[in-house]
Amino acid sequence: MATIKDVAARAGVALGTASRVLSGSSQTSADSRARVLAAAAELGYVAHGPARSLRRARTDVLGLLVSDIRNPFFSELAHAAEQEARRHGFTVLLANANEDAEQADAYLRTFAGQRVDGLLFSPQDNISPQLAATLASGMPLVFLNRTVEGVDAPLYGTDNAQGVQQVLSWLERRGHRDVAFIGGPETISTGAERRAAYVAGRAAHGISTDDRLLDAGDFLAGGAAEAMSRVIDRGVPFTAVFGANGQTTLGAVRALRERLGAEQAARIEIVSFDDLDWFEFASPPISAVRNDASAIGRLGVRGLIDLLAGREAVGQRIATTFIDRAVRGTG
Amino acid sequence: MATIKDVAARAGVALGTASRVLSGSSQTSADSRARVLAAAAELGYVAHGPARSLRRARTDVLGLLVSDIRNPFFSELAHAAEQEARRHGFTVLLANANEDAEQADAYLRTFAGQRVDGLLFSPQDNISPQLAATLASGMPLVFLNRTVEGVDAPLYGTDNAQGVQQVLSWLERRGHRDVAFIGGPETISTGAERRAAYVAGRAAHGISTDDRLLDAGDFLAGGAAEAMSRVIDRGVPFTAVFGANGQTTLGAVRALRERLGAEQAARIEIVSFDDLDWFEFASPPISAVRNDASAIGRLGVRGLIDLLAGREAVGQRIATTFIDRAVRGTG
Repeated sequence: MATIKDVAARAGVALGTASRVLSGSSQTSADSRARVLAAAAELGYVAHGPARSLRRARTDVLGLLVSDIRNPFFSELAHAAEQEARRHGFTVLLANANEDAEQADAYLRTFAGQRVDGLLFSPQDNISPQLAATLASGMPLVFLNRTVEGVDAPLYGTDNAQGVQQVLSWLERRGHRDVAFIGGPETISTGAERRAAYVAGRAAHGISTDDRLLDAGDFLAGGAAEAMSRVIDRGVPFTAVFGANGQTTLGAVRALRERLGAEQAARIEIVSFDDLDWFEFASPPISAVRNDASAIGRLGVRGLIDLLAGREAVGQRIATTFIDRAVRGTG
Repeated sequence: MATIKDVAARAGVALGTASRVLSGSSQTSADSRARVLAAAAELGYVAHGPARSLRRARTDVLGLLVSDIRNPFFSELAHAAEQEARRHGFTVLLANANEDAEQADAYLRTFAGQRVDGLLFSPQDNISPQLAATLASGMPLVFLNRTVEGVDAPLYGTDNAQGVQQVLSWLERRGHRDVAFIGGPETISTGAERRAAYVAGRAAHGISTDDRLLDAGDFLAGGAAEAMSRVIDRGVPFTAVFGANGQTTLGAVRALRERLGAEQAARIEIVSFDDLDWFEFASPPISAVRNDASAIGRLGVRGLIDLLAGREAVGQRIATTFIDRAVRGTG
């Protein structure tokens, strides 16, 4: 296991400098910070346990950094995490990255400066200098729903492959061949996994492999509406739309209604990853993969508490259920 | 202005005890805590400025305690507050009271223990011992959307009377006489203000004053569905429903569909305080008071920053707009 001496050597700085950077001190130059953090990340440096607990007094506060608090999936997850934490005597402070990697980094810095015992994190993107620093500081951390390649922390997240399989089976049962897929960013693990499962599985379910029917937004309503519009502009007809998360489906439905009119839009069947409050009221009602945000929040908190107690935490993929709201008839 | 000596005298405790309670020390008995906090609240004791800044180093972190993070009004507000705070160089840590006064108190304690410069707070209920302690500690605080009687802190919130007036005018224009009103808790200022404005204004707009058409839930979907069910059970016919917040409207619509069936439910016009994403997709579409959560979050942060800078902060009622989605025809 790498020591702080190894990190200092690799970064080409004095031991004291490495120590100051890794303890989060601001008395360091930007250059040495960058070098030390990169070295720590490369070597997989983890701060020594006892030193850590000396430095940090327990506060019974957990930090939760979500991707987008306006996404009901994350507000439900946050609610469940907080309820579970309270059952174990912890409170949860929440921060919102708003699907922005820079903002996520700002909040990782905030949490480092605050007195939190551990972090629940739904990341945006690839490993960032601040995430490397957080890991290097020895802060116990679990990932919620999304992971970052190359970081060894337990993930509690949706079984994306299962959820997409349920959608594909439903599309086949409903007789859809021409399906528009509106995905999320490829840089986010959920975006990449859902698209990969869809692209890999569509042919086996009799669904067109015409890639002009694929597009992607930002997992927010605005970007999804633009992606839906681009698919419409390509002129390839489709009878169903699959939105890769709840906000994506919202944006796609808005774009369909704006571009085609409510009546024409109502002839297109919609299916969504994430089940939202209003899907039962849409016309026609929207079928959906229920992505168990509560279970993810709950299990993530239990995992983090295990880490805090020095126990091992094993990540888990949480099963999805499919809510079929199709109006009966020929698809 | 009351001093800490006045507080100790009124509470009948030693000066050191009063000081320990007001600085948040746990080395005090429950009895002396209660007496000191009550005395501090009664005397309007505010901790001395310079002493305060000695005790607390600036962290550029603000705390935001919302009532219910699953309510889109509050997630939108939180998002706007955080964006505004970041423009001024602050980050925001969020906590969720889940419409529970005890949980709100737990989070006030958490924020007191964390390093936050000031608090944005959307309270549940009446003044609590922990809120008294927070105020007594001199923590700069503004209220968002809801206020607590007897506490002198600036409020940035919706103009509830104006919003209800817009609903009453719309109901009259649509020709509704028999209207079910599903409110929120009377102990929450927004619940009380919206009900009072409705009850005071209904007769002038030709709306029935039969109180069997009034009921109230908990501002969450579950409690609202029960309230809607109780109104249905009373057997007084109605042609429209007014839900006093977005989650209330969700619960009311669910109960109408479950109890009356989708077809019969679609004949009842719905109008809501708070405008939600899906109201445009409901059938018939739901008209709503747009409650400007973003403006409230933004102005609240600016007010708090004014307080932090030693400037005065003057609360503000934020205007509502009415979104008329009624399908044209005789009401």
